[in-house]
Order: sequence, then C-alpha cells, then structure tokens
Amino acid sequence: MTTQDEFSAPPRRFTDRSADTRAAILTAARARFAADGYEKTTIRAVAAEAGIDASMVMRYYGNKANLFQASATVALPLTGQITAGPIDLAQLAAALAHAFVERWEKEDNKVERMVLRTAMTHPEAVAQVQQIFDEQIRPSILASLGDDPDAELRAAMIMSQTLGVILSRYLFCLAPIASADPAVLERAIRDVVLLHLTRPM
Amino acid sequence: MTTQDEFSAPPRRFTDRSADTRAAILTAARARFAADGYEKTTIRAVAAEAGIDASMVMRYYGNKANLFQASATVALPLTGQITAGPIDLAQLAAALAHAFVERWEKEDNKVERMVLRTAMTHPEAVAQVQQIFDEQIRPSILASLGDDPDAELRAAMIMSQTLGVILSRYLFCLAPIASADPAVLERAIRDVVLLHLTRPM
Repeated sequence: MTTQDEFSAPPRRFTDRSADTRAAILTAARARFAADGYEKTTIRAVAAEAGIDASMVMRYYGNKANLFQASATVALPLTGQITAGPIDLAQLAAALAHAFVERWEKEDNKVERMVLRTAMTHPEAVAQVQQIFDEQIRPSILASLGDDPDAELRAAMIMSQTLGVILSRYLFCLAPIASADPAVLERAIRDVVLLHLTRPM
Repeated sequence: MTTQDEFSAPPRRFTDRSADTRAAILTAARARFAADGYEKTTIRAVAAEAGIDASMVMRYYGNKANLFQASATVALPLTGQITAGPIDLAQLAAALAHAFVERWEKEDNKVERMVLRTAMTHPEAVAQVQQIFDEQIRPSILASLGDDPDAELRAAMIMSQTLGVILSRYLFCLAPIASADPAVLERAIRDVVLLHLTRPM
C-alpha cells in the first residue's frame, strides 16, 4: 500500500504540522487559563479556542495539569551579564533589580499573574513557581556566591522580596507601593538584593 | 399595650442576644470562607452553619462582601513596645521581625491565608489587606520615622518583604525558604526591615 515515495519523503511536513498544532494549543490554553482561571478552564474550551478537536489536546498533553504546566511557561529576560556566570555581587544586585523592574513595568505578564493566582489553590502551579526559581533565578545567584554556605538561603530571601513586590505592587496594587516611581523601586530592590547577598549570617 | 416594666427594663437581654448572633454568624462565616473559598461560600451556607435563618445574616450584614469584610478581620499581636509610640529603629526592626515570626510560626493563620487567597481574585479582599497595613503596620513605622520624607515608601517596602515571606514560605512552601530555621528567618527579616528603615534614598 505504501509507495517508494512515502518511504523516501522526509517526515518534515508531519512534524511541522504537529509543532503548529502544539503551538496553537498552548496559545489557546494561555488565553483560556488567563481569562477563566485554572478551575473553570476545560480541555474542550481550549480545543475550541484553538479550532481543533479535544482529542488532539488530550493526545498531546494528556490532562489539564500537564497542559497548564506546558502553557504557563515563564522565560525571565535575564541579561547576558547575569547568565554568563559569576559576577561581582553589587553588579549582580543591580542587574537583577533592573531586569525585574524592566519586566514588570513594561510587560503585562498575564501568564505570570495567572500562575501566581492559580498557585494559591493548586499545587501544580506552585511547582511551576518553584521551577522558575530553580532554573532561572537560583543558578545565577549561586554562581556568584561561590562556596558561601548560606548561598541557598540568600537566594531564597531574594526570591521572597521580589515575590512580595509582585504581590503588593502588581497584583494587589496596594498603596503606596503601587504608585512608587519605578526608578525609586529599582534602587530599593537593588539594595535589598545586595543585603541578602552580603549580610553576615 | 406596653407596661411600665417594659419601658424601665434595660434593653440588656436583646443587645446580648444580638451580639451573640453576630458573633455566631462571624464564626460560621470564617469557617465557610476558609473551607470553601469566597466564590463558593453562600449566605445560606453561613446561616446553616450558625444554626439561624439566612434572613438574619442579611439583616446584620447585607451581602456577602460586607460579611467577608466583617468576618475576615486580622488583629496583629504587635507588642506594647511597637504600639507605644516612636522607638529606636533597630529596636523596631527586631520587634517587628519577632512579632511576624511568632505569629506565622505558631498560629495556623487560617483567616490570613483566606484573605490573601481571596485577594488574588476579589477586590474586597485586597481592601482588607490594605486596611490591615494602614491600621496595624504603617502607624508604628511612621511614628518611629518622625518627619522622614520617605517614611511611606519605607513602610511599603517592609510590607512587601513580609508579604513575600508569607507567600513563599507559608502559602507556597517553596524550597528552600520553607525549611529555613525560624531563628535564621527572623534575623533575615530583622535585617531587611532595618535596611528599609534606614537606607539612604
């Protein structure tokens, strides 16, 4: 039934189509999770938004928890300076504070907001927050701290301060931190990060 | 129809009963909001839990948002030292860090957790968080900072750090901050609070 042509043709077209389908599913999932919340989002609604059959979503992602994990990815735009390896702690504090404020002042961060909101009630979203910290924040801090025995706690306190600013300024919009000047905020965060990096334990 | 006796009797019994009813409603509301979340909690369920008619809950609290605000009250056990008035900034930092860690290590803080979880999706709970800050945290900090023009921002950054620790350690249980020794955590918070109180702006 198969022809020589079918064997020799590279599986390129199928792979492309599969990648396109996955991308469409993830885009639709991000939109639905952000708009409706984790609880109310269904595989069926995501499939409808992507214009495909729900069985395709199930085939690629299996269940809602997996679909959430695959769609709610966050890539922090850390500068080359931060990711290149160990740097001076004052430079690291300034670079982290700058990257943080840039990201949160200039992007709407729909996915980040949705992950944090969902993490309040769903462990799968907490796992996502943990993964972002472990893979994208912790390594650059540990690299710069060398063999400091308190490196892990220093990194964790830095994460807690940035999560606190996200919560109070960007999610809850509490006064007066919500109206603070971004440059003033950046200096405050820089100083806290440097404190956590260097304070005597 | 009324007797002299009814006029002269103090309205004590009615007032007591009213206070008892209100207290029973608030206890029931706290239990339902904490267990079912804001969205799923109904006036009817609260009334059933309190063993009274739903019309009584409506009579006293009007609607779910008001009932939430009345029931989800948080009284921070700030020490007399903090609330007595202006104190030395190093003392204030140590006292705030100690009060914070005591409260969160030793109490289950069901109401606080519920308010924060609800605030992710409901503005009425954000108003509650703002009110706790404005009435119970901000005044003691401002009193100690005197006429410092940056006092408001200093207080706001302190709030953001403590909210970040609540979120990462007590709500999300992120590693490694969730397993940090309470005494180590208290010193870290003390140092950050002191930084925010004293850093050059």
